[in-house]
Amino acid sequence: VTTSELPGGIYPYLVSPIGPDGAVDRGGLHAIVDHLIASGVHGLSPLGSTGEVMYLTAPQRAAIVEATITAAARRVPVVPGVSAFATHDAVEQARRYEALGASGIVLMRQHAFEIGAAGIVSYFADVAAAVSLPIVLYTNPSVLGGELPVRAIAELAEVPNIRYVKDASGNTGRILSILEHTGGRIGVYSASAHIPLVVFELGGIGWMAGPACVVPDAAVEMHRRFLAGDRAAAAELQRAMWPLNEVFTSTPLGACIKAALTLRGFPVGDPIPPQGPLAGTDVARLRAVLDRVDAALTSVRARVGSSAT
Amino acid sequence: VTTSELPGGIYPYLVSPIGPDGAVDRGGLHAIVDHLIASGVHGLSPLGSTGEVMYLTAPQRAAIVEATITAAARRVPVVPGVSAFATHDAVEQARRYEALGASGIVLMRQHAFEIGAAGIVSYFADVAAAVSLPIVLYTNPSVLGGELPVRAIAELAEVPNIRYVKDASGNTGRILSILEHTGGRIGVYSASAHIPLVVFELGGIGWMAGPACVVPDAAVEMHRRFLAGDRAAAAELQRAMWPLNEVFTSTPLGACIKAALTLRGFPVGDPIPPQGPLAGTDVARLRAVLDRVDAALTSVRARVGSSAT
Amino acid sequence: VTTSELPGGIYPYLVSPIGPDGAVDRGGLHAIVDHLIASGVHGLSPLGSTGEVMYLTAPQRAAIVEATITAAARRVPVVPGVSAFATHDAVEQARRYEALGASGIVLMRQHAFEIGAAGIVSYFADVAAAVSLPIVLYTNPSVLGGELPVRAIAELAEVPNIRYVKDASGNTGRILSILEHTGGRIGVYSASAHIPLVVFELGGIGWMAGPACVVPDAAVEMHRRFLAGDRAAAAELQRAMWPLNEVFTSTPLGACIKAALTLRGFPVGDPIPPQGPLAGTDVARLRAVLDRVDAALTSVRARVGSSAT
Amino acid sequence: VTTSELPGGIYPYLVSPIGPDGAVDRGGLHAIVDHLIASGVHGLSPLGSTGEVMYLTAPQRAAIVEATITAAARRVPVVPGVSAFATHDAVEQARRYEALGASGIVLMRQHAFEIGAAGIVSYFADVAAAVSLPIVLYTNPSVLGGELPVRAIAELAEVPNIRYVKDASGNTGRILSILEHTGGRIGVYSASAHIPLVVFELGGIGWMAGPACVVPDAAVEMHRRFLAGDRAAAAELQRAMWPLNEVFTSTPLGACIKAALTLRGFPVGDPIPPQGPLAGTDVARLRAVLDRVDAALTSVRARVGSSAT
Repeated sequence: VTTSELPGGIYPYLVSPIGPDGAVDRGGLHAIVDHLIASGVHGLSPLGSTGEVMYLTAPQRAAIVEATITAAARRVPVVPGVSAFATHDAVEQARRYEALGASGIVLMRQHAFEIGAAGIVSYFADVAAAVSLPIVLYTNPSVLGGELPVRAIAELAEVPNIRYVKDASGNTGRILSILEHTGGRIGVYSASAHIPLVVFELGGIGWMAGPACVVPDAAVEMHRRFLAGDRAAAAELQRAMWPLNEVFTSTPLGACIKAALTLRGFPVGDPIPPQGPLAGTDVARLRAVLDRVDAALTSVRARVGSSAT
Repeated sequence: VTTSELPGGIYPYLVSPIGPDGAVDRGGLHAIVDHLIASGVHGLSPLGSTGEVMYLTAPQRAAIVEATITAAARRVPVVPGVSAFATHDAVEQARRYEALGASGIVLMRQHAFEIGAAGIVSYFADVAAAVSLPIVLYTNPSVLGGELPVRAIAELAEVPNIRYVKDASGNTGRILSILEHTGGRIGVYSASAHIPLVVFELGGIGWMAGPACVVPDAAVEMHRRFLAGDRAAAAELQRAMWPLNEVFTSTPLGACIKAALTLRGFPVGDPIPPQGPLAGTDVARLRAVLDRVDAALTSVRARVGSSAT
Repeated sequence: VTTSELPGGIYPYLVSPIGPDGAVDRGGLHAIVDHLIASGVHGLSPLGSTGEVMYLTAPQRAAIVEATITAAARRVPVVPGVSAFATHDAVEQARRYEALGASGIVLMRQHAFEIGAAGIVSYFADVAAAVSLPIVLYTNPSVLGGELPVRAIAELAEVPNIRYVKDASGNTGRILSILEHTGGRIGVYSASAHIPLVVFELGGIGWMAGPACVVPDAAVEMHRRFLAGDRAAAAELQRAMWPLNEVFTSTPLGACIKAALTLRGFPVGDPIPPQGPLAGTDVARLRAVLDRVDAALTSVRARVGSSAT
Repeated sequence: VTTSELPGGIYPYLVSPIGPDGAVDRGGLHAIVDHLIASGVHGLSPLGSTGEVMYLTAPQRAAIVEATITAAARRVPVVPGVSAFATHDAVEQARRYEALGASGIVLMRQHAFEIGAAGIVSYFADVAAAVSLPIVLYTNPSVLGGELPVRAIAELAEVPNIRYVKDASGNTGRILSILEHTGGRIGVYSASAHIPLVVFELGGIGWMAGPACVVPDAAVEMHRRFLAGDRAAAAELQRAMWPLNEVFTSTPLGACIKAALTLRGFPVGDPIPPQGPLAGTDVARLRAVLDRVDAALTSVRARVGSSAT
């Protein structure tokens, strides 16, 4: 198995725009994809928790992946999420997305019964073995249930195409532990529960999260400023964006991302029932936070002379 | 909507026998169904957590329901579980099982993002409105996530075809609270985390749980003794069966039920990966517990002269 | 060590009336003790969680025990709570209360760091060994933290003066498990999270809880009706009292008991800061619930002709 | 109230050496204090969770504070922990330590019953009002129970002598949120669940934690390298020390700190029962980790020419 690399950088987690009839709004999704790529993002991840993956049937999931890959048209890699309780279900999803042209897989495990350390490792290893795509391990116990201990990540890092991890614990020390215990064999992406700039500074390679779908230009600029060694500008953007992470981690995610994209001019509708729309007070928080991000971006761009460093 | 009643009594939760190729073992399932009906059970519930419902794809679930209904051949009602995160997904499942001839639905909600009290009520009410079958609300936060507060149950009791609740909290006071706050409009079934005889004594109408699939004759006899007012015999059977509930609630459920049925002469294989088989020490516990149940049943039957009161 | 028995029956958990200056209101406590004994209770337990034991300093605790024993004047046994993180702290408390004339100890463990099964057993066994009083093991993980597994209870049942357990899990099956695994060597008292009548029916010997301090006459009558084999009357009282248990387990306990006693004519003030008084809506719930208990008691007494069976 | 400042930097959390008779080992404590001050630490904190504060009686706590202040002899500030459920209990402790000569208080709240946001704020504000020392808010829900929301910290930041916070959540984003929402009025110290270098880089002012008691020289050197702008050396020391934080947060804290100090040549005995000594495998992990820290310190010192920058 030869596995191509995924680039580091900004991977917005995509929303899943679904109409009341259950059909994917391909036009709406295409417009978002074009906007994100124009903003300079490095890849796209449909079907994360941001994409309400648990609320979608298997055909809906495949339709989202197909529409995203078509819209991206090979301009950036598309790395969809695979999420299941059963190994065979995850294998089916992963193979289907590989056949559709995905560049990698973000692999999640949903938890019901205790399966022990060996069961956890077998799930991820067996799904990885079923495809030749690079695999991003994803762990978010608060939404999916179930732990992915650092020891299991270290063991899984021996599997050739398991190359990355996206951690949503919010515990930055865990990221340092992953880097230590995998000896550099695993690239770490930040999730929205982390401060991405801190993850970059610790050696992380990118940010995969819903907020990057809402402020892709500021996220890309922060990443550029970091790479350019301009810590002051990167920190200014990070401070301005952190309140957006706070909103994402303190509200229901599906409702939050859809309200945020609607505010940004992409009317993606309400989250999938029984989820309801974001509360009005949280929409107001979002609006204020987005204004602050925009102001910080204007200020940083003015200072660095151009956004195209 | 006119909704027929579900009878009270013993409803074994069925195992889901699935081969390594993902196909349902229809012959194995038929044999179990025949055995359970011969033991005198009052209904059958496929696709509960005992049936590893979360680990099955939509086509596998439908195949299990179809095979169970065919095997039961209208001798007893079949009440399959519907389990989903999204309302539309649950509606599709419920309608499909109604079309296949189900007599009722055990309705579960899987939890990801916070949806508030109104969201919880809307999920159950919207699925109930989509079918004309009687609905059993099922709540098991430790496996499915998400609460179903007594207040929500009281509100849902106003929906005409929401008629029953199966509670898996283990907290007996919650059952008394449900009975109090629904004013007799809701029938309560015990799950394996409860002492079913106590639930009967408080006014509950039956026992829906995995252990009843393993010791159907003892479960049916306990229920008969209770109805006959023979508390001593019912309590003797209950004391003998309680250790079986203990095993079910302290081991991984899918592994436990499959090991137990294999011990009882129904080789249903291992649980669906990434679940592994039950640990050997737990199999030994199961064997000892089953022996004790059999001995108690023999003793009670000898005393009451006949099992057919 | 010869340990006298504690009688079964109704043990109200006592409130701790403390003035703003931190001094015990001995007169107020005496009035409550007299009232409870006149109502027919079988024992008194100061310094439970109902008594806000964690909020009291060592001298305050000793003053409460001394005042209660003085007020009880050997009419009923006084069984104070001992609560500590450290073994030596619990030993000091237990010896002090033994010297003050206590008839037994309700022994609680507060939890900070993991101590494993051996640590748990050593705590309870070492404190028991330091006194010759009968010990009631008390386990309430939701307030005190830390588990007391059934296996540990079974091991502790071998210690001569560990004779009883009070369980606050609300999980009735756990009580049946305790009875099974201790082979009758341990007497079980119900806490307010349980339905006491169900615990009696399973073989429990009494009810130790805050609600019994508020409705001692109804609690005593329910116990008498149970002992007399009059299940209908006992159940009627239980159904009327259960909403009181619901209030106790769904509100902050210190605030709830003090509001309830004030409603009953014993002005015991507010809970110890930083606790605040019970919310007004909960006080209204309490009042309605107490009225219902009183009505049920009147009805049952009228039917049985006399309360003195 | 005029409150002097606490300096930033390294504050080792002190162990509590207690003999089997319950008496403080003043000589042992003095030796540790001398060693820490010689290593260049900026302050000393007795009676944290590292100091097993919950396991100590009020007289033992006062003896520890008195002995530490005597040993420190004004060379560095002594900032003891105050920990209680009740406001009055915390006030008594704080006043006593102020009278003994403490330079500040680390104020913890132990949690039993729900007290709401207003109750939480009142506890910390009322204790702060009772002394004129600077207050460090300390929040560690996993050991003490109870939350201290960022919103409450922001409100408490208005109290004149509430000047600092020590956060043990491990969630670095929470530290950024605290800094944002208190507008610079609150200084933040890292606990052992955080990566202290990251906290410094985000604007934190120091590290208050048990590991600093075990490797004070490396901790002081990391802080110096950070202040000197030598990020490479600081990061090298941080990477070497992080495994020590991992051991501290994955083992029982009281057992861990006492084993670590014993390895460092300070025989402080076992943790207070019912805690037991650290498992042998964890002692071996500790030893390996300490060797790595020592090697990194030697390497960094060799490179920077001298440790006395």
